[in-house]
Amino acid sequence: MQQFVEQAKPYAKYGKVADYIPALRKADPNDLSIAIYAPDGTVVCAGDTQEKATLQSISKIIALAFVLMNRGEEEVFKKVGMEPTGDPFNSIAKLEEKQPPKPLNPMINAGALAVTHMIDGADVDERFHRLLTFVHRLAGDSAITYSKEVAQSEFETAFLNRSLCYFLKQHGIIDEDVEPLMDLYTKQCAIEMNCIDLARIGLVFAMDGFDPIQNDPIMPPHIARICKTFMVTCGMYNASGEFAIKIGIPAKSGVSGGILAAVPGRFGIGIFGPSLDEKGNSITGIKLLELLSKTYSLSIF
Amino acid sequence: MQQFVEQAKPYAKYGKVADYIPALRKADPNDLSIAIYAPDGTVVCAGDTQEKATLQSISKIIALAFVLMNRGEEEVFKKVGMEPTGDPFNSIAKLEEKQPPKPLNPMINAGALAVTHMIDGADVDERFHRLLTFVHRLAGDSAITYSKEVAQSEFETAFLNRSLCYFLKQHGIIDEDVEPLMDLYTKQCAIEMNCIDLARIGLVFAMDGFDPIQNDPIMPPHIARICKTFMVTCGMYNASGEFAIKIGIPAKSGVSGGILAAVPGRFGIGIFGPSLDEKGNSITGIKLLELLSKTYSLSIF
Amino acid sequence: MQQFVEQAKPYAKYGKVADYIPALRKADPNDLSIAIYAPDGTVVCAGDTQEKATLQSISKIIALAFVLMNRGEEEVFKKVGMEPTGDPFNSIAKLEEKQPPKPLNPMINAGALAVTHMIDGADVDERFHRLLTFVHRLAGDSAITYSKEVAQSEFETAFLNRSLCYFLKQHGIIDEDVEPLMDLYTKQCAIEMNCIDLARIGLVFAMDGFDPIQNDPIMPPHIARICKTFMVTCGMYNASGEFAIKIGIPAKSGVSGGILAAVPGRFGIGIFGPSLDEKGNSITGIKLLELLSKTYSLSIF
Amino acid sequence: MQQFVEQAKPYAKYGKVADYIPALRKADPNDLSIAIYAPDGTVVCAGDTQEKATLQSISKIIALAFVLMNRGEEEVFKKVGMEPTGDPFNSIAKLEEKQPPKPLNPMINAGALAVTHMIDGADVDERFHRLLTFVHRLAGDSAITYSKEVAQSEFETAFLNRSLCYFLKQHGIIDEDVEPLMDLYTKQCAIEMNCIDLARIGLVFAMDGFDPIQNDPIMPPHIARICKTFMVTCGMYNASGEFAIKIGIPAKSGVSGGILAAVPGRFGIGIFGPSLDEKGNSITGIKLLELLSKTYSLSIF
Repeated sequence: MQQFVEQAKPYAKYGKVADYIPALRKADPNDLSIAIYAPDGTVVCAGDTQEKATLQSISKIIALAFVLMNRGEEEVFKKVGMEPTGDPFNSIAKLEEKQPPKPLNPMINAGALAVTHMIDGADVDERFHRLLTFVHRLAGDSAITYSKEVAQSEFETAFLNRSLCYFLKQHGIIDEDVEPLMDLYTKQCAIEMNCIDLARIGLVFAMDGFDPIQNDPIMPPHIARICKTFMVTCGMYNASGEFAIKIGIPAKSGVSGGILAAVPGRFGIGIFGPSLDEKGNSITGIKLLELLSKTYSLSIF
Repeated sequence: MQQFVEQAKPYAKYGKVADYIPALRKADPNDLSIAIYAPDGTVVCAGDTQEKATLQSISKIIALAFVLMNRGEEEVFKKVGMEPTGDPFNSIAKLEEKQPPKPLNPMINAGALAVTHMIDGADVDERFHRLLTFVHRLAGDSAITYSKEVAQSEFETAFLNRSLCYFLKQHGIIDEDVEPLMDLYTKQCAIEMNCIDLARIGLVFAMDGFDPIQNDPIMPPHIARICKTFMVTCGMYNASGEFAIKIGIPAKSGVSGGILAAVPGRFGIGIFGPSLDEKGNSITGIKLLELLSKTYSLSIF
Repeated sequence: MQQFVEQAKPYAKYGKVADYIPALRKADPNDLSIAIYAPDGTVVCAGDTQEKATLQSISKIIALAFVLMNRGEEEVFKKVGMEPTGDPFNSIAKLEEKQPPKPLNPMINAGALAVTHMIDGADVDERFHRLLTFVHRLAGDSAITYSKEVAQSEFETAFLNRSLCYFLKQHGIIDEDVEPLMDLYTKQCAIEMNCIDLARIGLVFAMDGFDPIQNDPIMPPHIARICKTFMVTCGMYNASGEFAIKIGIPAKSGVSGGILAAVPGRFGIGIFGPSLDEKGNSITGIKLLELLSKTYSLSIF
Repeated sequence: MQQFVEQAKPYAKYGKVADYIPALRKADPNDLSIAIYAPDGTVVCAGDTQEKATLQSISKIIALAFVLMNRGEEEVFKKVGMEPTGDPFNSIAKLEEKQPPKPLNPMINAGALAVTHMIDGADVDERFHRLLTFVHRLAGDSAITYSKEVAQSEFETAFLNRSLCYFLKQHGIIDEDVEPLMDLYTKQCAIEMNCIDLARIGLVFAMDGFDPIQNDPIMPPHIARICKTFMVTCGMYNASGEFAIKIGIPAKSGVSGGILAAVPGRFGIGIFGPSLDEKGNSITGIKLLELLSKTYSLSIF
């Protein structure tokens, strides 16, 4: 594994750290850590596995699973579609074209905001606490919390997400106030963990929602499968098609440089490598997954 | 004139009163009033000329004139373009296509918000007071104020305008907080007057910025001409081209059913007729202007 | 199997037969046939399996496999992308947005035309003959030919595809004359077979390019996998995302009502049911696959 | 006048000669000629007024006048709209967005092709002859013909216009074969004249369709006015808004560097200056018109 990491690391120089959220700019582009979690509890790691990073867009797939469990498919898919889009994750143009203007899928920002809107609770604190508890169970780690600094930094600068929220509100996709929703969403994105936690969450998806370590049926198999499908069709922003062809593993990335991957029936993978390519995916993380997928034939296709 | 009004009135039934701002729904679709103001002070009217209505989008042309006078062409056109667009007035898609995402012109909502953003003053009250004072001078009527009810109603429901604002803020077109700007903008749109006031403002534009009643050079001729040009190329939403061909008078409409028109060198026209066509223009107002333009050859072309 | 067909058939009434190609209008919307081909040569069928239908868009995945084998991935993906799109299959707008204007993927018409353009040969006859020979080998049936009537009908009316071709020619994606390309493309789309042939082709994809019946390694595994990936991300037009979630089998549909499906490592499926839903997919075919996928857990996710 | 030309000429270096039609590349970017034609027959010129250039897009306004006279407004505006668009002249995306996909106006290529399609005649020769005879009458010069070289060059490379034609044909806007239409359209664009001819045509538009030199009522006033309106709202491609604000004269440009302008009631202007700005307008021609408009207050606004 360490060898793969060494092979992938030099690619960091072709990318750059996310700069649109001020607090993310501090990341070291040369960091790279990976963990692979097997159903029998074996963990193989490399790099500084104690380094923590925020989930960012990876949280979209976790929130989707949570909301599907709470609200059911029918209700969720009334507010968000199932189709991939060739547009960037923060595009608003496509929303206007479609009638009704339902976000095309839950992995683009507009769709993710509609999903987070459906997290139930009396207030932002309760809603976030419910989601965080779900994360604790998924990762088997109740110490996981969120980065106040990153949440605050994103909250202060997320004008485009507010633009999307108001557009959704205009069209009745969301009906709560925008500021509390932004508060909840930026906290969700700022949930922080190391790559081992991330790999363990990947394992739960890989095992169809069942946690083999705790013998805990965390989510129904059909919901885990829906999530893995979205990971394949739109988990890697508008590079998902290329990722599916070259690597073929259900995965979700975030602009912190994280990637959550789930090799069905076999294991979960967690990676953090903050140097991003132009689509917003970890450039070293993708390289690492490509090496793994080719060496061990991990593609689902 | 009364005869023209009688001819135009039956067309009200083909349109409907604006319903996206709750407070506008109360208007009577069969109302229709018109005033024509000549440089010698003669006013010809028909209909209930004491009926007041809010300016809505008509305010965009007044705010533009004011901001051009205060900030100068160069600064204003750094933030907003000069080109008509085939899109609806509240479209956001086009903003995303262009690089940089500058609103195409000051008559679409995105552009108008960028213009209102440039109204100087210590706070919303002062900024609004300065604009209102300018309106008083244009109309020669210092009793003009705004409808608190309409402003409030629009403030509470203007989610799409907030979406546009945050989009503009993301891209550095505006840099103030969105809520004060929305407060100022909705007050600006809610400025209320009768059709005689409106006709007098039209006269000032018709006379290249000079008020012949008070012998007052209110605005420089080149600014009045810029405003009239925008009235022709994009004053009637995305029906401006058809209006220019069929009627050919510089004019600006609002969803309250108002139309401000300026026949260069001859007179100003003010109309209120709340029944709107599908593009958002007063259906009886356009009919009336068509009858006037054809009968008296008022087209500038 | 017959039972599943009976369950699916009533859904035919919610769709309609393709009408944009005149010759396809003659199809009976109530037809429905299916074949499942296993690696050991077992074939399970239902419906009138001798009924033949044209491939239409199903031919896109076959032409892609053929061109990938002849030209290699690098050359092919210079002319066509790998990303799904939320737009309809015949959209031209997205081409204009992207710089360079490369078709987003080989399953939309623009991309498929770019792929067919890459079929080598001295002239249309030779190029078509080479493709047809490949189809013969895939289906193990050298009697397969094309419907002159359907090809002719489509050739005469394919104005939108010619529009796409000239757009691609303008931008250097294709450099041959448009009429020969249209001749080749409409013949390719008019290749005609029954559902057993189709199922056998599906089996070759399911077995990673290896034909277990003839012990024939028809295509390299990585090319078969690329094709299956495109089937998942964009094989069912802009309903691919929903199909992946609900059914999860790599599949490609055509407006003749055909569906080619490949259950990895297990079997190939061929279906013809000409009643189409609004996205252009066989409405009974999708129902049938949904019943099969749920009953036998065929989803790859 | 010579002085204005000297002032404008240095701007040639900021633009470049059209290169998308091979035969146009030969033009000298430093050429600049202008003629102003008054109703009393006075002609003021500067530069090499015997230099001829092709009309290119200027022909769109002449064809529009001709077709409006032959077919009437109602029929013409069934096939083409009246609204300006913020898109480039050769855009196809907007066509797809609108339902029905009618070109937004007759000055963009799609709309101009729909107009040329409406030129009546037994075949291309007769149709072109009829249009050319109309041009002879407008310019009072029966020696005007077209450049076979430019027509041929454009015919061979006009893939994008063919793409637009087939798109229009798919949607029933045109129903003739594309190649004859392209033959006619490229000949129309290749009609060749000097700036004095062009100024005389401008004069006819300026005088509401009446030729004061021959005392010839060439076209009805309302048609001349429709044409001048389109010149203002969309005559200078997607820089029309800025041109209207800064110069305010109805004008139509072509990529050969020609500009036809009509100062209502006063005179016609013809300019050739092949160095183009990025929107496709003559950079020296615009400068020259700006100097003239400012010096002699020619703006209609």
